[in-house]
Amino acid sequence: MKNKYPGKFITLEGTEGAGKSTNLKFIESWLAEQGIDVVVTREPGGTPISEAVREILLDKRYGEMTPETELLLMFAARNQHLQEKIIPALEAGKWVVSDRFTDASYAYQGAARGLPYGRILEIEQWVQQGFFPNLTFVFDLSIEEGMKRVKARGEADRFEEEQQDFFEKVRSAYLNRAKQAPQRYEVIDAGQPLVRVQEQVEQKLKQLCLAAGKKVVA
Amino acid sequence: MKNKYPGKFITLEGTEGAGKSTNLKFIESWLAEQGIDVVVTREPGGTPISEAVREILLDKRYGEMTPETELLLMFAARNQHLQEKIIPALEAGKWVVSDRFTDASYAYQGAARGLPYGRILEIEQWVQQGFFPNLTFVFDLSIEEGMKRVKARGEADRFEEEQQDFFEKVRSAYLNRAKQAPQRYEVIDAGQPLVRVQEQVEQKLKQLCLAAGKKVVA
Ligand SMILES: Nc1ncnc2c1ncn2[C@@H]1O[C@H](COP(=O)(O)OP(=O)(O)O)[C@@H](O)[C@H]1O
Ligand SMILES: Nc1ncnc2c1ncn2[C@@H]1O[C@H](COP(=O)(O)OP(=O)(O)O)[C@@H](O)[C@H]1O
Ligand SMILES: [Mg+2]
Ligand SMILES: [Mg+2]
Repeated sequence: MKNKYPGKFITLEGTEGAGKSTNLKFIESWLAEQGIDVVVTREPGGTPISEAVREILLDKRYGEMTPETELLLMFAARNQHLQEKIIPALEAGKWVVSDRFTDASYAYQGAARGLPYGRILEIEQWVQQGFFPNLTFVFDLSIEEGMKRVKARGEADRFEEEQQDFFEKVRSAYLNRAKQAPQRYEVIDAGQPLVRVQEQVEQKLKQLCLAAGKKVVA
Repeated sequence: MKNKYPGKFITLEGTEGAGKSTNLKFIESWLAEQGIDVVVTREPGGTPISEAVREILLDKRYGEMTPETELLLMFAARNQHLQEKIIPALEAGKWVVSDRFTDASYAYQGAARGLPYGRILEIEQWVQQGFFPNLTFVFDLSIEEGMKRVKARGEADRFEEEQQDFFEKVRSAYLNRAKQAPQRYEVIDAGQPLVRVQEQVEQKLKQLCLAAGKKVVA
């Protein structure tokens, strides 16, 4: 069923520093200029309960967390996020843009932590029951370049502490998933100057607007 | 496969005030007298991560938590509890006694909150993969009597705030589950004087010890 609601659901994925947060803001204002009611959000998080779960997930004291626990916590947070915030907004005709969503579970808990694809799929189906984003941007950037961009950020969290190898797996997983369902994904070379990146984002948003029967203001 | 490990796993269930915590201590010392290495624990909780999830679950500010989120959080906590604490102890030949376990998910999130049985079963299988307690005590008590017993306790948590009707569903669910697998459950009339209750507990523990090839010290 994908997304049976009147609003559209757009997600942003990519490794650290690839430009998700930067482009989230760009997408938010671009859609607002089109007269679309936009809700921006993030995962893990987006509701008070989900943000409380996020704190557990990112807490560096919890090194003994197993990949299965991590996955269940991600989907617990996601379930609340969907039911309390995302779906009500889409039902009301708003568009929702999220900084990360379920593709991140396949990339991080799946490819990088080693949980089998099938185990993630089962929980995804349990929680989402066929619901998917209309469009997912994958900001693709080398791990080294991403690290350089985010060097100035504060202390690393439980994920950011991982090694290069871990993030390479995340990056490949995103590219592989995009290859398998090209109609849903837009892969963007995030190593380009930001204006180039945003041109490509805008291009794709225009297509989605037109497909949704919205006129696009130049 | 039930429990393929050398140690035995015993769980205690029942509504508030039925005597779980009281009998947990009794079981712990009785087994210790038999020379058995015992680990006592509780759910939700039992490990630092699971206790952090417990805090979210019991927090009264989170009235908007959906039953599905509640279930996923319960099983996230349980997964960590199993992998970090319960299974390693059983592998080492210790016996583990837990104040609540998965039967509580069927009673609270299932019967009382209304989640379909099949949805709980799927997550249970995902997390436990056929692992079950060897023995589950169900302390059965009228809701009124339980309330009287616990009146002195502090402020109610998110579950304790529920109404009588909710707890009646929990109580019936435990009894129904016990009826469907009588070899695993021992239902005890918890309205009896504590000595009577403990006689029945002891009787059952003796059977389990003998079945496990342990001599019982009188
Ligand atoms: N295409 C780009 N070229 C150069 N710098 C960029 C580009 N996109 C984002 N940045 C910068 O890189 C840093 C990380 O971007 P951010 O959007 O926070 O990434 P993410 O949210 O994916 O971790 C920010 O300082 C941002 O201004
Ligand atoms: N069989 C019994 N008869 C009378 N009082 C009991 C009995 N079992 C427990 N109690 C008392 O009832 C109260 C609640 O018991 P507790 O073990 O804390 O219940 P639970 O852990 O199931 O909520 C305690 O004060 C306990 O001493
Ligand atoms: Mg960001
Ligand atoms: Mg108790």
